[in-house]
Amino acid sequence: MHQPPSSLDPRQMDSSRRRFLKRGAAVGAALMAGLGSSGGGRAQETPAPDDPSKVLGGPIRPYGERSRFEQVTRDKFAKSKTDEIAASTLTPLDETVGIITPSALHFEVHRGGVPDIDPAKHRLLIHGMVDRPLILTVEEIRRLPSTSRILFLECQGNSQLEWRAPVGKNVRDTHGATSCSEWTGVPLSLLLREVGVQKGAGWVLAEGADGSGNERSLPMAKAMDDVLVAYGQNGEAARPENGYPLRLIVPGWTGNINVKWLRRLKVVDRPYLTRMDTVGQPILLPDGKARQLNFVMEAKSVITSPSGGQRLRGPGFHEVRGLAWTGRGLIRRVEISADGGKKWRDARLQNPVLPLAHTRFRFDWRWDGRPAILQSRCTDETGYVQPTLAELSKVRGLSSRFFNNAIQSWRVAADGSIHNVRA
Amino acid sequence: MHQPPSSLDPRQMDSSRRRFLKRGAAVGAALMAGLGSSGGGRAQETPAPDDPSKVLGGPIRPYGERSRFEQVTRDKFAKSKTDEIAASTLTPLDETVGIITPSALHFEVHRGGVPDIDPAKHRLLIHGMVDRPLILTVEEIRRLPSTSRILFLECQGNSQLEWRAPVGKNVRDTHGATSCSEWTGVPLSLLLREVGVQKGAGWVLAEGADGSGNERSLPMAKAMDDVLVAYGQNGEAARPENGYPLRLIVPGWTGNINVKWLRRLKVVDRPYLTRMDTVGQPILLPDGKARQLNFVMEAKSVITSPSGGQRLRGPGFHEVRGLAWTGRGLIRRVEISADGGKKWRDARLQNPVLPLAHTRFRFDWRWDGRPAILQSRCTDETGYVQPTLAELSKVRGLSSRFFNNAIQSWRVAADGSIHNVRA
Repeated sequence: MHQPPSSLDPRQMDSSRRRFLKRGAAVGAALMAGLGSSGGGRAQETPAPDDPSKVLGGPIRPYGERSRFEQVTRDKFAKSKTDEIAASTLTPLDETVGIITPSALHFEVHRGGVPDIDPAKHRLLIHGMVDRPLILTVEEIRRLPSTSRILFLECQGNSQLEWRAPVGKNVRDTHGATSCSEWTGVPLSLLLREVGVQKGAGWVLAEGADGSGNERSLPMAKAMDDVLVAYGQNGEAARPENGYPLRLIVPGWTGNINVKWLRRLKVVDRPYLTRMDTVGQPILLPDGKARQLNFVMEAKSVITSPSGGQRLRGPGFHEVRGLAWTGRGLIRRVEISADGGKKWRDARLQNPVLPLAHTRFRFDWRWDGRPAILQSRCTDETGYVQPTLAELSKVRGLSSRFFNNAIQSWRVAADGSIHNVRA
Repeated sequence: MHQPPSSLDPRQMDSSRRRFLKRGAAVGAALMAGLGSSGGGRAQETPAPDDPSKVLGGPIRPYGERSRFEQVTRDKFAKSKTDEIAASTLTPLDETVGIITPSALHFEVHRGGVPDIDPAKHRLLIHGMVDRPLILTVEEIRRLPSTSRILFLECQGNSQLEWRAPVGKNVRDTHGATSCSEWTGVPLSLLLREVGVQKGAGWVLAEGADGSGNERSLPMAKAMDDVLVAYGQNGEAARPENGYPLRLIVPGWTGNINVKWLRRLKVVDRPYLTRMDTVGQPILLPDGKARQLNFVMEAKSVITSPSGGQRLRGPGFHEVRGLAWTGRGLIRRVEISADGGKKWRDARLQNPVLPLAHTRFRFDWRWDGRPAILQSRCTDETGYVQPTLAELSKVRGLSSRFFNNAIQSWRVAADGSIHNVRA
């Protein structure tokens, strides 16, 4: 049998490191040039063993937890520092990898706190302009014909503070209100066929069971297309802050129409123009009017690394990573610019590229050490190209706020520090 | 504005229920005929509010947790009731939905406990028949060119106790040692090119950092193909019991070659026939010989619901749900039989069907109330059809154990109870 070497001998490490880095190959350069700011501040009470193979490890756990050394969290997004009830959390896009967002890090918005719902007591009422009103228990819904899809969910307020000036310090601030999960549930079309939608009905009013009175009007055509009454998120029950036990999932459409804690669907003849239908998501136009009932999240992308608040250790290889998504179907292309939008080069898209899901892109970048402006620009299957904020502002003026899908610019300074800028 | 009805009025519920169920439509039948055994035993200390919309909910949480009403756990699989160190956990496949397994419910096998590893101290050594040995930190590995894939992981010991007789009470017992995650990491081929593999090298010995001394020999052709040195699982760091901070991910190959807590890769000229290379996974043959170095998990499927231990409430509609997977690429077809294998009908496959990932299948079944035997049978893209255990035993005899990919039979009794049987 082989002899295991004293594998972590520091002398060996030093000599191999030296040899490796001298060569200046791609990987070597990456090691030298990596991000300096990640990790940090992970104070631990008890040190881990120097060689874990010399001691017994811990026991099995019925429901696993992450390592005590992993401390990544959602950031809070709220006007008041003390308010935890009308508050939001943002996904740490600079720390997540792949396309699935861990449920524990999925962004959330709530206005009446996260309700404590006993699924045994919860009911879904379907009524209004229907032949056979229906009340279903959660258990009944879980038994019906089901389907699952990997889908992004983005709040129309994502990037809202960026409209007038670059405000966010990092990609959580600027883009953290988008996440991607595998959702499982019952097609809403099946339930609507079951209750028998009456002639003249064109909309469905969806109501959540939380204290905020969230109601949204959903067009019947979408309701009969691909909407789910979902109970599953990433393989298990949806998380409390994401709608447990039932959530309306409206693929590709703005976050708050994906009504959480769903308890009522009323089939109606027109949009009800509820509070969240109106003040919740208008697009303000230069002439003082507001465009209401906006639904589709247009194509958008962002570089998640290197991104604001990080620092490049030095020139050389860096993998540029990011996410792109579109409410119109598939992302076809993502391009990267390192000079503020003059030259663009194609990024690699991670397979499979799924419709209405986050698409991970990657790009091999060699930083020459001079100031640079990193941008990503995506194109979706309709041919729509992600706009600059200048282009968006031409149409919407300066007082717009929601549905900001503009190209994000990260400025890399000569010292490697990275900042949110307008370019 | 509309008037919200008193939506959960019991009179309305009763009348709508009555009306609905009278019709005997598909959904109605499903509601009547649902599984009776799910849920249960969820004793809660504090009751949830009867109407959560009348009270404020809870605050935001930086790292989310599931609802207190969700109590699904992994089952323990160990020879000794008290042993938590040389123990395994099994994924509750009867409770999970979609294709992503929640990381907290991913199955695990460990023989020296789950090591407590500080990623700042952990190193990966790559040495042996290479031109430039290399030691990498976790931080360095996270910076290298990366990729992500949704992949199943199955222990070759999955279903091992089923070889001689139907032993497991439920689908956790029989099939719970398979799970599916999105894994993110660095292609091993990139690292091997970096160190410069020498002529004559044909294998890579992979070593974990836990106390069990787990080592496995990996053929170079696979190592240069699609193997990852992974650090990410379902969007965040891999979980401790699944290899934190580094795990070798060998797509489609048996679980224990996906070496967890990876700390060393030695490029060598031959398989080292380590303990886990030999006693860990042989296929015992009727002539007393053992077939060693088995790697690929052949096509396999199982019905996860209705499944052992559950009980159908009554005749009528039931959605048959299950998972299929193959180490050879794509699942092309899953068929369902309700009569122990005489007649087969095609199940629906959930899109996207991904290579080397779990594939979710669903099938609309109408139970007539008489005893039935439910089976699923999958076919992969090579044309390989999942065998019966009788077919497998013809080749391997009665003392085999590992790599049992036989068709599973669930007997539905006239009272709706479901049992693991040989059919």
